[in-house]
Amino acid sequence: MPYKDEQLHEEKVFKDPVHRYVHVQDRVIWDLIAAPEFQRLRRIKQLGTSYLTFHGAEHSRFNHSLGVYEIVRRIIGNFENRNDWNDDERLLCLCAALLHDLGHGPFSHSFEKAFKLDHEHFTQQIILGDTHIHKILERVEPGFSQKVADVIDKTYEDKLVVSLISSQIDADRMDYLQRDAYFTGVSYGHFDMERILRVMRPIEDQVVIKSSGMHAVEDYIMSRYQMYWQVYFHPVTRSAEVILSKILHRAKYLFENNYTFKLKPFHFVSFFNEDVGLADYLKLDESIVFYYFQLWQEEDDVILRDLCERFINRRLFKYIEFNPNQQMKEWMELYRLFKAAGIDPDYYLEVDSSSDLPYDFYRPGEEDERLPINLLMPDGQLKELSRNSDIVESISGKKRTDHKLYFPADVVRKLSDALPAKQRIMELLNLEQPLKGENEHAD
Amino acid sequence: MPYKDEQLHEEKVFKDPVHRYVHVQDRVIWDLIAAPEFQRLRRIKQLGTSYLTFHGAEHSRFNHSLGVYEIVRRIIGNFENRNDWNDDERLLCLCAALLHDLGHGPFSHSFEKAFKLDHEHFTQQIILGDTHIHKILERVEPGFSQKVADVIDKTYEDKLVVSLISSQIDADRMDYLQRDAYFTGVSYGHFDMERILRVMRPIEDQVVIKSSGMHAVEDYIMSRYQMYWQVYFHPVTRSAEVILSKILHRAKYLFENNYTFKLKPFHFVSFFNEDVGLADYLKLDESIVFYYFQLWQEEDDVILRDLCERFINRRLFKYIEFNPNQQMKEWMELYRLFKAAGIDPDYYLEVDSSSDLPYDFYRPGEEDERLPINLLMPDGQLKELSRNSDIVESISGKKRTDHKLYFPADVVRKLSDALPAKQRIMELLNLEQPLKGENEHAD
Amino acid sequence: MPYKDEQLHEEKVFKDPVHRYVHVQDRVIWDLIAAPEFQRLRRIKQLGTSYLTFHGAEHSRFNHSLGVYEIVRRIIGNFENRNDWNDDERLLCLCAALLHDLGHGPFSHSFEKAFKLDHEHFTQQIILGDTHIHKILERVEPGFSQKVADVIDKTYEDKLVVSLISSQIDADRMDYLQRDAYFTGVSYGHFDMERILRVMRPIEDQVVIKSSGMHAVEDYIMSRYQMYWQVYFHPVTRSAEVILSKILHRAKYLFENNYTFKLKPFHFVSFFNEDVGLADYLKLDESIVFYYFQLWQEEDDVILRDLCERFINRRLFKYIEFNPNQQMKEWMELYRLFKAAGIDPDYYLEVDSSSDLPYDFYRPGEEDERLPINLLMPDGQLKELSRNSDIVESISGKKRTDHKLYFPADVVRKLSDALPAKQRIMELLNLEQPLKGENEHAD
Amino acid sequence: MPYKDEQLHEEKVFKDPVHRYVHVQDRVIWDLIAAPEFQRLRRIKQLGTSYLTFHGAEHSRFNHSLGVYEIVRRIIGNFENRNDWNDDERLLCLCAALLHDLGHGPFSHSFEKAFKLDHEHFTQQIILGDTHIHKILERVEPGFSQKVADVIDKTYEDKLVVSLISSQIDADRMDYLQRDAYFTGVSYGHFDMERILRVMRPIEDQVVIKSSGMHAVEDYIMSRYQMYWQVYFHPVTRSAEVILSKILHRAKYLFENNYTFKLKPFHFVSFFNEDVGLADYLKLDESIVFYYFQLWQEEDDVILRDLCERFINRRLFKYIEFNPNQQMKEWMELYRLFKAAGIDPDYYLEVDSSSDLPYDFYRPGEEDERLPINLLMPDGQLKELSRNSDIVESISGKKRTDHKLYFPADVVRKLSDALPAKQRIMELLNLEQPLKGENEHAD
Repeated sequence: MPYKDEQLHEEKVFKDPVHRYVHVQDRVIWDLIAAPEFQRLRRIKQLGTSYLTFHGAEHSRFNHSLGVYEIVRRIIGNFENRNDWNDDERLLCLCAALLHDLGHGPFSHSFEKAFKLDHEHFTQQIILGDTHIHKILERVEPGFSQKVADVIDKTYEDKLVVSLISSQIDADRMDYLQRDAYFTGVSYGHFDMERILRVMRPIEDQVVIKSSGMHAVEDYIMSRYQMYWQVYFHPVTRSAEVILSKILHRAKYLFENNYTFKLKPFHFVSFFNEDVGLADYLKLDESIVFYYFQLWQEEDDVILRDLCERFINRRLFKYIEFNPNQQMKEWMELYRLFKAAGIDPDYYLEVDSSSDLPYDFYRPGEEDERLPINLLMPDGQLKELSRNSDIVESISGKKRTDHKLYFPADVVRKLSDALPAKQRIMELLNLEQPLKGENEHAD
Repeated sequence: MPYKDEQLHEEKVFKDPVHRYVHVQDRVIWDLIAAPEFQRLRRIKQLGTSYLTFHGAEHSRFNHSLGVYEIVRRIIGNFENRNDWNDDERLLCLCAALLHDLGHGPFSHSFEKAFKLDHEHFTQQIILGDTHIHKILERVEPGFSQKVADVIDKTYEDKLVVSLISSQIDADRMDYLQRDAYFTGVSYGHFDMERILRVMRPIEDQVVIKSSGMHAVEDYIMSRYQMYWQVYFHPVTRSAEVILSKILHRAKYLFENNYTFKLKPFHFVSFFNEDVGLADYLKLDESIVFYYFQLWQEEDDVILRDLCERFINRRLFKYIEFNPNQQMKEWMELYRLFKAAGIDPDYYLEVDSSSDLPYDFYRPGEEDERLPINLLMPDGQLKELSRNSDIVESISGKKRTDHKLYFPADVVRKLSDALPAKQRIMELLNLEQPLKGENEHAD
Repeated sequence: MPYKDEQLHEEKVFKDPVHRYVHVQDRVIWDLIAAPEFQRLRRIKQLGTSYLTFHGAEHSRFNHSLGVYEIVRRIIGNFENRNDWNDDERLLCLCAALLHDLGHGPFSHSFEKAFKLDHEHFTQQIILGDTHIHKILERVEPGFSQKVADVIDKTYEDKLVVSLISSQIDADRMDYLQRDAYFTGVSYGHFDMERILRVMRPIEDQVVIKSSGMHAVEDYIMSRYQMYWQVYFHPVTRSAEVILSKILHRAKYLFENNYTFKLKPFHFVSFFNEDVGLADYLKLDESIVFYYFQLWQEEDDVILRDLCERFINRRLFKYIEFNPNQQMKEWMELYRLFKAAGIDPDYYLEVDSSSDLPYDFYRPGEEDERLPINLLMPDGQLKELSRNSDIVESISGKKRTDHKLYFPADVVRKLSDALPAKQRIMELLNLEQPLKGENEHAD
Repeated sequence: MPYKDEQLHEEKVFKDPVHRYVHVQDRVIWDLIAAPEFQRLRRIKQLGTSYLTFHGAEHSRFNHSLGVYEIVRRIIGNFENRNDWNDDERLLCLCAALLHDLGHGPFSHSFEKAFKLDHEHFTQQIILGDTHIHKILERVEPGFSQKVADVIDKTYEDKLVVSLISSQIDADRMDYLQRDAYFTGVSYGHFDMERILRVMRPIEDQVVIKSSGMHAVEDYIMSRYQMYWQVYFHPVTRSAEVILSKILHRAKYLFENNYTFKLKPFHFVSFFNEDVGLADYLKLDESIVFYYFQLWQEEDDVILRDLCERFINRRLFKYIEFNPNQQMKEWMELYRLFKAAGIDPDYYLEVDSSSDLPYDFYRPGEEDERLPINLLMPDGQLKELSRNSDIVESISGKKRTDHKLYFPADVVRKLSDALPAKQRIMELLNLEQPLKGENEHAD
């Protein structure tokens, strides 16, 4: 029997807290899961620094990847024997689902910004380069790894296949919303996935939703909205993210300025040089990062030491509302005052902005255009979701942005009262009254 | 206001997936949670190697410690104004609950065995030594840290206080059963804790259960039984544990034999020397361990390299049922055959036995005597649980043991067929038929 | 000890699937629950005809009433010792919560319309008239029953007390949304009530929500929106409601026209005469209604018999979208055609419209003005919810209406093809294609 | 297409709180559900008088019947293409599952005892007699109704089919345990049904369980045990049951003694005469019973009136532990004393005993022999469950019995203190101290 058709002697299952069970029947999938590049995802948290806000959020990308695979498996199970669905694409879909996040590194967002990396680039490299994953895919058939890479890259010709993995209601989002809600423990993130799966229909080059399932989709969109603002953009999480970025920038700066580390950070060298090869990239998981951050707590450089100590022991920055567009003057004054007070504003004063577009209708030609969710009406016509749903219409295309200014309140408070700048800093940072940020969930 | 009575300006809450919310009102508790020694528990998994069997089980001891605190807080809330309860012990109970696992290191069990450590010893040291935790406790009142240490050590004079933290139905067990069930996703581990908390009564020096709540307690005992055998003693988890132990032993052996590591394992030196101070102990969390295991994948020593590669990439040992008491002859034959085949049996052949006593009535004088669960009958008498419950009686005092033999099936299979030993090894290890251990949940 | 302060020897609890436990400590509450007028609520379904759509929705108003009581009990528990809260009102709140639905009869909506009744009127009568409930309340203190009646009637002077029972986010709504979701099994209806309760604050004459809890309130508003359209206004439920109304109208018509029933419907006589006393009202619960409907299946009157048989055996009317405002001509044509075909359109053709205003800001002076939900901002100001929440703003003040036309498709289909009207009826009713209404959840 | 193979145009689904969705694809099943004899199950509570103990337990047998059907549908879905499974039996299994409880009447147990009825007899009659159900089944193929009746009667030749519906781990039990737990809200009743379904294997004439699923089965057996003692045999429920029986006996007694009822109880006549035909049986649902009980609250006969008033308004009997085998003397004394005090002991003094055999191994030849649960071991052998499981072994074959004595405490307490018998009655009934039974869940 050709490798691509090989079935396990008995179906294997993984106990999964979100989907109850993840089922594996194909030898290929089983082998991919066992590959070192996939096992590595166990050492990278799904939600980066969120565990410092929600202590339950310690789950890994390994978890999520299995979940996305399982959802696609169920969708395809429903598609069998439907027109417009080509069952030859089955294995391709499953592989793309399983592997779509393969290139993520530790704390992806911060690392990507600090070292100009792109995790999607590495996903492609792992699939196409000299890896266990690549070899397994090529055993399916020569060129199969390229197909998988194309699906993940959204360039694969069969857009129906692409849309299962990447659209405004894809398996990726359905898994992470539910999974992140489960592990954080928040009560958002519930929607009736079973129903959504049952009303999905493959129509030509897209997956559409039977209109009778519209309300389940509304619920999903609302879940998404709440999860973004309650969990993903939580200001305490962002505070930890700010510190993390500052650590990376400081270490790079020191490296570039020939600072002598007590132990040479050899895992980081190619990152500092912005010339990261696949092998180096694969080695840098979260345990390595934590190892260095802990070492650096004992470095001579005061800033690096302090920032690492803050991150490791969760002594985070506090925050206030702060709109940089309207408060440029205050910003400049604070920057100057921090300098005067001996607190380096490049590391201890940061505006962070988050914005989200919860749902978008189709706007052709614009950058980052997003395919809309289409409903299949009883008369067979397609109708874009926001034109049928008041609630979705109300948030459709509306970008919301939140700005916060982060700073170390403890340091400011400890400044000598004799210092002329102190009083004004306290005033600008609202430090007279109790501050937010110590605990996120306080009511 | 004295420090011990200080209340937070507003109650703080942590979102917890198991108990919904963890509530903190006392300044002391808030400060303890923020202490570096407590934050360190975020870097130690609650279930050690279980995440290799149940991918959801990635939660940390930080999670669990908050949970135990919360349960004790709720119990005490119900005790207020009851006879036999001294509300002066409130803060002491909360601190002991929060800190009872403070001394755990990474993969405690394996490390303790390999390096002759005792996590309870380190819990005492962290509470009594020169630490942030110690200072906070002494601010409550001089000698308070010793009281906390005594409660955890079960030597504190008020046995009622001790029993909240350590008994056959204490806050520790109630939290971990529910929490571990939640994160692994298994359907065992459910019992009606709300009811159990409501029927707990402080009577002299113990906590007893009103007899009307007996069935909830039965359910708890059954949960415990199922969790031990389905989760804690899962053979795949034990397979990972075996490999982990072998890594530690091999590294120690190499160190003692002056092997030159590519990078000196300085975090491990005091462990190898079996002379671990508090500072060294606190530094060794799981990220450090993983760092070294990853480095060691590139060591020259073939055994260390192979074992680390197995652990990191989850290429575990397979297993068969094997009772060392009855199969000593086979064991010796296998040991000899492995040697002959060039597979070092000291690292690649291991019997692991797990045993559990799900509930025990009181057997005075025996070692490790356990206090029984007593029911408070309607007539005011106390009656030991197993004398009132058929189900509990049936498993009471009955130790159950499970033995398995672990080995690398892949290596054995790859032996040359020309090798005379191979055939016999295959036979003894049952390698003709499909083997268990690749996937735990396969049915 | 005065009756109003009497506590039960031991707290009593009811196992409740929604709130886990309902706790009763006050003798007064215990006695009210045991009163026959309260026990009667066990014989009246909370959701009327919904059980014909969602088979799980068989729960009674007794269930819900206990739930509302429990929620108010928890809210008040959080209010203790807060300014603006007068703990003397505690028992009044609990009684009003427990008794607020006491006057509901079977299938309230249809009965009220058919016989010009008002359940609120009967709630007042039961509390103030010669009943067990009344006597218990007057034992608390003379005039106490009037206070309870006033709170339920929203005329009580302390509006803070009123708002716990009747506002846009009151205990009534919070219970029924969760309870109805639980029993129907739909996945809407989840929101974080525990958090909402914790962020409720009594401020002067209203309950406000700390702004940090806004997202939980958004979730509640969305739940409400989904429950209305997915459950409460489900077209299949409304189909059963239409038939029920027609039965009541037919029976009344026959009675008024001196039709001789096989068994005199003596429970209904005062209803037919539109002169219902309290004693008669209390006797008519759902088992009585079902008794008559079953008898009437064997009546001589063809219409009454058919309608009862439809209701009892769930042979419901089918439906199509139909806007009476725009389709008056079709309506008149259909009415005429039904007559011509021998199907009485007064009983077999009905437009039913449902509309809902999911959230409303304050519009003083308009009829049915609704108090808005106010957020308590960090600076101590109050801010109306929809001014702070995009999602709520989007649905605020927007009434949505759904119109459907109901008719017996089976009868139409069985008309002789020779009948000239048939073809046109089939066309107007869309009867060429498969029709909705047989099963509600079909996708 | 023959009727038996007809598929619905689109799959229909019912929203079910326990199984999430119940799926119907076969026209036959759809028609059976719509039949009046099946719809009648909506008017019969699944748990009889339990709703007076657990207010959530108001669900009907309609609910449960759909649930059993759905479980069998899922089991069969897993069986397809397995040896030993004959897919021709599919529709037969589904019909038998759906219809297995069709003959239940209101409060079955009490009615059966009072009027010497047998619900299984009526199930057979409904399937084989002149009913809508019968006609639908005969359309499948002549003789099909007999096959369905045989499966339910356990006389069908293919025992594998029988065992799906009736065995110690059948679809019936799996549904009711979960469903009754859901609606009562108790925390027992959880087990991993998904896993049990997946490890079920058809082997010759029985369904066996792969040994890897043994723990899930243990959990199921424990659930069953807890549900019996915590829910089904709850003494408060039995108190209501006692009163119900007494009402039926009193009414029959009055009828036989030519008492003149205010309204002739014509629905009951054939029951009193112990000559119930199918038509009469089908008419007597719970609403009819409640109708009469409410009427009888106004009868002249003091006993009938009082008992009905107690049942309707939940003024139940209290109870004490009482073993009739050992306390015959007390029983006789009480009987005599009640008479002396003017309380008719035939209606107001009753011993009720419940007993349960939670699991039984095979005991051939004994009456009511039960087939054991067999495990399929890895070596292909079958092994009876209790021989492999310590926990099951411990409760296997052990009958447990609970005896209680029920009586109206309120009446006894109101006896004149002058009455000589009173003091002794109070003593024998333990009436000095607070009594159980007012509220079941009090701790």
